This record gives sequence, C-alpha cells and structure tokens, in this order.
Amino acid sequence: MFTGLSAFPLTPTSEDGIDERGFANLVARLSAAGVDSIGALGSTGGYAYLTREERARAAQIAVDAAGGVPVMIGIGALRTSQVRAHAEDAQNAGASAVLLAPVSYQPLTDDEVFGLFEDVSRELSVPLCVYDNPGTTHFTFSDELHGRIAALPNVAAVKIPGIPADQARERIAALRGKLPRSFSVGVSGDQFAAGGLNGGADLWFSVLGGLLPEQCLAITRAADAGEATTLSDQLSPLWTLFRRYGSIRVVSAAAEHVGLITGPNLPRPLLGLDPAARKEVAAVLDKILAE
Amino acid sequence: MFTGLSAFPLTPTSEDGIDERGFANLVARLSAAGVDSIGALGSTGGYAYLTREERARAAQIAVDAAGGVPVMIGIGALRTSQVRAHAEDAQNAGASAVLLAPVSYQPLTDDEVFGLFEDVSRELSVPLCVYDNPGTTHFTFSDELHGRIAALPNVAAVKIPGIPADQARERIAALRGKLPRSFSVGVSGDQFAAGGLNGGADLWFSVLGGLLPEQCLAITRAADAGEATTLSDQLSPLWTLFRRYGSIRVVSAAAEHVGLITGPNLPRPLLGLDPAARKEVAAVLDKILAE
Repeated sequence: MFTGLSAFPLTPTSEDGIDERGFANLVARLSAAGVDSIGALGSTGGYAYLTREERARAAQIAVDAAGGVPVMIGIGALRTSQVRAHAEDAQNAGASAVLLAPVSYQPLTDDEVFGLFEDVSRELSVPLCVYDNPGTTHFTFSDELHGRIAALPNVAAVKIPGIPADQARERIAALRGKLPRSFSVGVSGDQFAAGGLNGGADLWFSVLGGLLPEQCLAITRAADAGEATTLSDQLSPLWTLFRRYGSIRVVSAAAEHVGLITGPNLPRPLLGLDPAARKEVAAVLDKILAE
Repeated sequence: MFTGLSAFPLTPTSEDGIDERGFANLVARLSAAGVDSIGALGSTGGYAYLTREERARAAQIAVDAAGGVPVMIGIGALRTSQVRAHAEDAQNAGASAVLLAPVSYQPLTDDEVFGLFEDVSRELSVPLCVYDNPGTTHFTFSDELHGRIAALPNVAAVKIPGIPADQARERIAALRGKLPRSFSVGVSGDQFAAGGLNGGADLWFSVLGGLLPEQCLAITRAADAGEATTLSDQLSPLWTLFRRYGSIRVVSAAAEHVGLITGPNLPRPLLGLDPAARKEVAAVLDKILAE
C-alpha cells in the first residue's frame, strides 16, 4: 500500500456538487497509468470542504473507478466525531487505508492531537496514514509526537511535508529513529519529491501524480537509478506555478486546459485562476506534454 | 447593535452534543447582567466544530434565552454554500446580526475572501460583522481589503484582533480611514480591550464577557472615564492564563469551577485543562470574584 507513487486527484466540485463523472474519469486514468495507489479526498481532493454525504459518495466513486488499485481516503475534520464518521464511510466504501490530518481551528496541543489519533485509530480495520501538513492544519508535529502516534494500533505510515533535497536524508533518518521498523514514510510537496525519494522515503504522495501520472511514475521509478532529480528539474516551471498560485488552483486549471474536466471545479470560496494565470499554466503544461 | 460590550459565551459541547440547558443558562446570565449584545457561536462558542443542525439549534436557544438583548450569530465555515446555509438558519432563529470569518484550509487569496463576503452579504436581511481573526483563520486582512468588503451591502462592522495599547489609537484611526463613516469597529483579544476602547473602538467583543459580564461591563463603562486600563490590569493573571492555555480552555475550566456547567464541555479533539492548570484557573478566578 505505502510504496511508489500515490496519486492525489482533484475532486471537481462546483456549487452544484461533485462532478461525479469527471471525478471517476480522473481516478480511472490514474489506475490505467499504473500508479501504486490513489489518495482520494486529500487536500487537493477538497476533503475539508465537502459534506459527509459528498465525501462518502466520492469515496465510493474512487474505489469503484480505481479498478483494484488501492485507494486511501482522507478522513480529516475539525471534530473527532466527524472524523470517526468519515472513517466509517471510507471503510464501507472499500478504502484500503485512511489519511488523517489534525485539522485545526483553535490551535491544538500535542495531547489533543494524540487524543484524536488514539480515538480514531482504535476503531479502524484498515491502516491509517498520519497527514503532517502544517501549511493547511497549522499544527507542527514534533518527532516525539510522531513516535507516540506511530505506536498506536493501525497507524502504519506518515505523509510528511517537503524537505529541501540537501536535508532530506538526514531528516528522514531522524524521523525513522522515532518510528517502528515497519513504518512507512512518504514525502509530499511535489517539487521536493525527488530529493525525498533519493533520501530514503518509501513513497511519494503526489498532487501532480493525480494529473500527470506517467511523468510522476517516471520520476518515482528513476529514484533507484539516481535520475529522479533530473526528471523533476524538467518540471521546475510547474513547481514555480505551484508555489505562486497554490497547487490546487494550478492542477484545476491544468485539468481544464487538457479537457479532463470543465470549470468551475473548485468549491467556493476557492476560485479558479484568472485568465492571465491560466495562460501561464497552459504554456508550461503544453511544453511538458510536448516533450 | 455594535456598541458597548458584546459578550461571547461558550457553547458547552460534549460527545453527546450541546448541553442545551447549560448554554441557555449562560446566555440568560449575560442578558440579566445587562450586556449590550451577545455573540453566540463565536470562536469560543465553537461554531467551527458544530454541525448545521447543532448550530441552528444553538442559535435558537441563544435568541430565546437572550430576553430581547440583540444576538449576533457566527456563520463561518470553510465552504461558501455552508456559510449561506448557516446565515439562513441564524436569521430564521431571530439573529440581530451575523459574524463571518474567512475560515481557511487552503490559504485564501484576497479575491477569494472578497468573493465570500460578496456572495453571503447580498442575501442577508441583518447586518454582518467581518470577523478578522488571523490566529484561527490564518488569513491576514489588508486595510484595503477591509475597505472593499465594508462597501458591500449589509456589511456594518468589523471585529479586529487585539492591538497593544500604545498602538491602538493610531491603528484604529488608520483602519477607519478605509471604512464608511457609520461603520463600527470592535476590538477583541480581551487583554487588549481597555486599550482598544480608549483608542476609539466602538465596542468590545469579549470572551471573558461571556463568563464574567459584570467585570467586563465595568471595564467597558469605565473607558469614557479613563479608568478602563486600571480595571483591566486587575485581571492580568487571567490574561496570562488566556495566553498560556488558550481562552476557550480557560473559560471552560472557569465556568466549571463556578458551577455554571459540567465537564467535559469542549468538542473533541479539544480537551479540558489538566488538574494542575485547573488549580491555577481556580485560584485566579477565586481572587477576582472575592474582590
């Protein structure tokens, strides 16, 4: 489950609800490309914005469209009782794993975050991946807290934020020192993925993998041969746009540009990019796809 | 509506749901004390954690228990469609105003925040107060954006974060320069309230006012006489605890200590204070109440 490329598709959503056919097509494309797993309802998948009913439905669509590729479902929410409900729905839909971030409104203490994972993990019958994403949760894990949570039943992996390439090996080794031996460490922050894979991560949780699975599979497979950085660097204009506009808005515009989905496809108040930014995305994407 | 002391009570909530009787008692106490308005379902009121049904019910309880004191209801949520639903429910419950923060998961752009207020304000039949709270929303307003939003129909007030006393007058004057003449500016961050009131704010949106309305009314009324700072400084041990543990956890423990509600009363993953911290809260509170 926690190896190779885990691709995180957008859940195209407008004021009318989820574009179910568009979402199923996005997931099926990933399966056809041969990704190792699919992360549905991640940050790019808009889990935080959707109702319980929409999330349960999206989980079912993802599992059905994945054609046997394991699907991990994001179950994060502000309140523990809501997280437990999403976990139940994800498992009923056939999820192979769940992904849980300590989403916050009031800043959370370490004990509160531990309590959240304790409450949720004990009820699971699938593995849980800890989602460490301070950019959206505004919670910063210590390695000691990672270690406490990793010792809970059913907790099997962690999705860590991007690390600069020159620090990746040391950072991952330090974290592994607090984790059980069989625990999986996956990197995110697409621009840092090559460095993370080279630095000893077990897998890459990838936003771009949800849109360009072939290119991201090539980077993932190249890590063993030491060629991942070269391939990743070829995508640097895209990483620049991710930083400038936010990866969710860029993949939204890119998916529209190549005709996979129609707009609007982000849940308001999120807005699609303006025409000038769309032109930048189109130019960068066309160049990548022509290579 | 937007004058004097606006008191923000806790919404006591456990895994079994809202303690409706406890909440009604908290609100009725504020009305009996003579606060100028009540802010239900603010940050301390846990709006971000409650379901639509719980929020609609809490809004109704607050209006019913307020005995004619105007009630403002927090309508914030991550998604615009959810905010619109909460606004409808609040108005159906008899809210005199609504309070809207740009709650975020994906970091929001200025245009997205403006769009949120535009979408919501046009449908209102009560005034809206902009809730500027970067500590929970992680969105930072520019004064220019405040000005754009303040020009929207039905937008009538802003709740700003605390400002150190020596900067309050200048800060409030600069902000007012971007706002319509009749627009109300209210301060929050209880420890900074006296400075804000002295610096020209129209009102104080107060967490402590939801628990100790008499003491906070005394500070509010003393602002005109120049005595607010002295009264506020007498509460400085409480402000220290607010900073150390978060005001929501302190008022939760304090309300338990004086027998107004029973624990647990915070929505998990939020946890009540541990026994040592509760002792600190009890000691500080007992001293204040004995004076």
